[in-house]
Amino acid sequence: MLSYWNDYPTIQNKLQIVCSLIEKQMRVRNKDIQETLIDFSQAGGKFLRPAFFLLFASLGDPEKQDEEQLIKIAASLEILHMATLIHDDIIDDSPLRRGTQTVQSRYGKDIAVYTGDLLFTEFFKLTIEAMNGSKFLAINARSMHRLLLGELDQMHTRYNKNETFRDYLRSVNGKTAELFWLACAQGAHFGHTAPHVQRVAGRIGRNIGIAFQVYDDILDYTADEETLKKPILEDLAQGVYTLPLLLAKAEQPDIFFPYLEKEDKITPQESQEVADLVVKYNGVEMAKDIARRYTQKALADIATLPEGEAKEMLQLLTTQLLLRSY
Amino acid sequence: MLSYWNDYPTIQNKLQIVCSLIEKQMRVRNKDIQETLIDFSQAGGKFLRPAFFLLFASLGDPEKQDEEQLIKIAASLEILHMATLIHDDIIDDSPLRRGTQTVQSRYGKDIAVYTGDLLFTEFFKLTIEAMNGSKFLAINARSMHRLLLGELDQMHTRYNKNETFRDYLRSVNGKTAELFWLACAQGAHFGHTAPHVQRVAGRIGRNIGIAFQVYDDILDYTADEETLKKPILEDLAQGVYTLPLLLAKAEQPDIFFPYLEKEDKITPQESQEVADLVVKYNGVEMAKDIARRYTQKALADIATLPEGEAKEMLQLLTTQLLLRSY
Repeated sequence: MLSYWNDYPTIQNKLQIVCSLIEKQMRVRNKDIQETLIDFSQAGGKFLRPAFFLLFASLGDPEKQDEEQLIKIAASLEILHMATLIHDDIIDDSPLRRGTQTVQSRYGKDIAVYTGDLLFTEFFKLTIEAMNGSKFLAINARSMHRLLLGELDQMHTRYNKNETFRDYLRSVNGKTAELFWLACAQGAHFGHTAPHVQRVAGRIGRNIGIAFQVYDDILDYTADEETLKKPILEDLAQGVYTLPLLLAKAEQPDIFFPYLEKEDKITPQESQEVADLVVKYNGVEMAKDIARRYTQKALADIATLPEGEAKEMLQLLTTQLLLRSY
Repeated sequence: MLSYWNDYPTIQNKLQIVCSLIEKQMRVRNKDIQETLIDFSQAGGKFLRPAFFLLFASLGDPEKQDEEQLIKIAASLEILHMATLIHDDIIDDSPLRRGTQTVQSRYGKDIAVYTGDLLFTEFFKLTIEAMNGSKFLAINARSMHRLLLGELDQMHTRYNKNETFRDYLRSVNGKTAELFWLACAQGAHFGHTAPHVQRVAGRIGRNIGIAFQVYDDILDYTADEETLKKPILEDLAQGVYTLPLLLAKAEQPDIFFPYLEKEDKITPQESQEVADLVVKYNGVEMAKDIARRYTQKALADIATLPEGEAKEMLQLLTTQLLLRSY
């Protein structure tokens, strides 16, 4: 869904090149899998991580930049993201992702396991091609590691009635914010930006990542199924308790505990009741406050970046993205 | 199962250090998963890939070697192997591996997916720590890629009645021989061995790997369940047709086709009949001939290596391993 970038031709053109490179990496003997991967890479992803990476890189000195290297790193970020999505969909048994069938619902869990593995390998290959010898290679490995620990944390706290904001934040820090952190931090690094930019880039990425995930979790409670293009409230039934619920529950534990005690026996009707109660007890509003706080932190840091198109786009993008309705 | 190495104290000591490093890499917050991983790393693996790596390295100049680097690479090979085993067991729905419960039968597919992913990441982290800047980093990524393509190939040819020796060899080359190739080739490289050793090491590894897999597939037809500690004939029911069957089928297609046409509807009784027919029509004997041929090729190359303990161990190990009954 690079049409998302229609108003930003500079970045859209670069993302088009990133997209072609990803497509080239997806060549495998099994044509079904190849097609699935290509479809998936084109089906509705906004390429946010590559975009943040490229925007931060463009704050630096173009003379010192290696365009091919930047494209490879941008592609590697999206590929790592795709790999985790495919494996997440196995865990969640999701039938849909980005409005189309998930790999595992189309070909079964087995193919989905190996397809995700293959993408992890492509990530590994591309980062090595792009930056062998750089200290950022170990940083990429560490990020991938934290991403997976974030997923494991989230599984570990499933159906945990006593889950706190702190637990939630730790998981979000790993499973979402880490990759935004990486995109921005290595964008600043490989774009050869000024020391100040390199200092704040990662922090901006992390704050955007947290706000992004909080808004994503809010959508489960506010969007209707058609707009969101994925089954709503699925997290709840699977014991993944996200911020709006955690905040409402902290206020009214006695109201929510009986529902949560049903664990996976909760009915769709009861899930809907919980959703309504979360809204009623201000869970959504409180979560929005928190997302806004992280967005403001990010915007305050963005304000200190050097003037220019990239900075303006980062401001617009951050504001827009975090107030999105889809 | 480092007791396998009781007669070889030099290598056993080194493998013990490798084993401790692997254990150290398995520290995660979720204690269940940590224990599973540690149990799994200690439960019956012979550490063959680290052993071949270390043996080839020890053919080189000790003055030039970095002991810590060698241990890390040895550990990374076993970790990559473990990762593929855990994901294989998901695909195969195997209840047992090395005589103990598999990760997915103990904790479910979901945990098994992430646990395997975590090990892929540890592989990535360790290789980068051990060899950032080396051309072997890209070679490791390529091997991991081929490993996965080998797995995908094998899935792709499931229930393919027309599968040939050639298809089989391609899959084996990826899923098994590639890692033996890598172990030997980078052992020679990081051990700073003579140019001749570096030239033949990879070829020795590949031939051993192929022979190893062929013997493994023969065992499905000859070993009883108790000796082998894994359910026999499972490959057959899952449409994975290995060498003994392929060779017997090439001789007597009319006898085998009706069975294979049943695909996953084949009964345990019929599977046993197929197994008996494979033996009757010399499938096992012909497969053994092929394994022997690859073993001889490996031994001929090993004969050209510099004299010493490492060479003798390689000879003994290759002969023993490929004539193993368990």
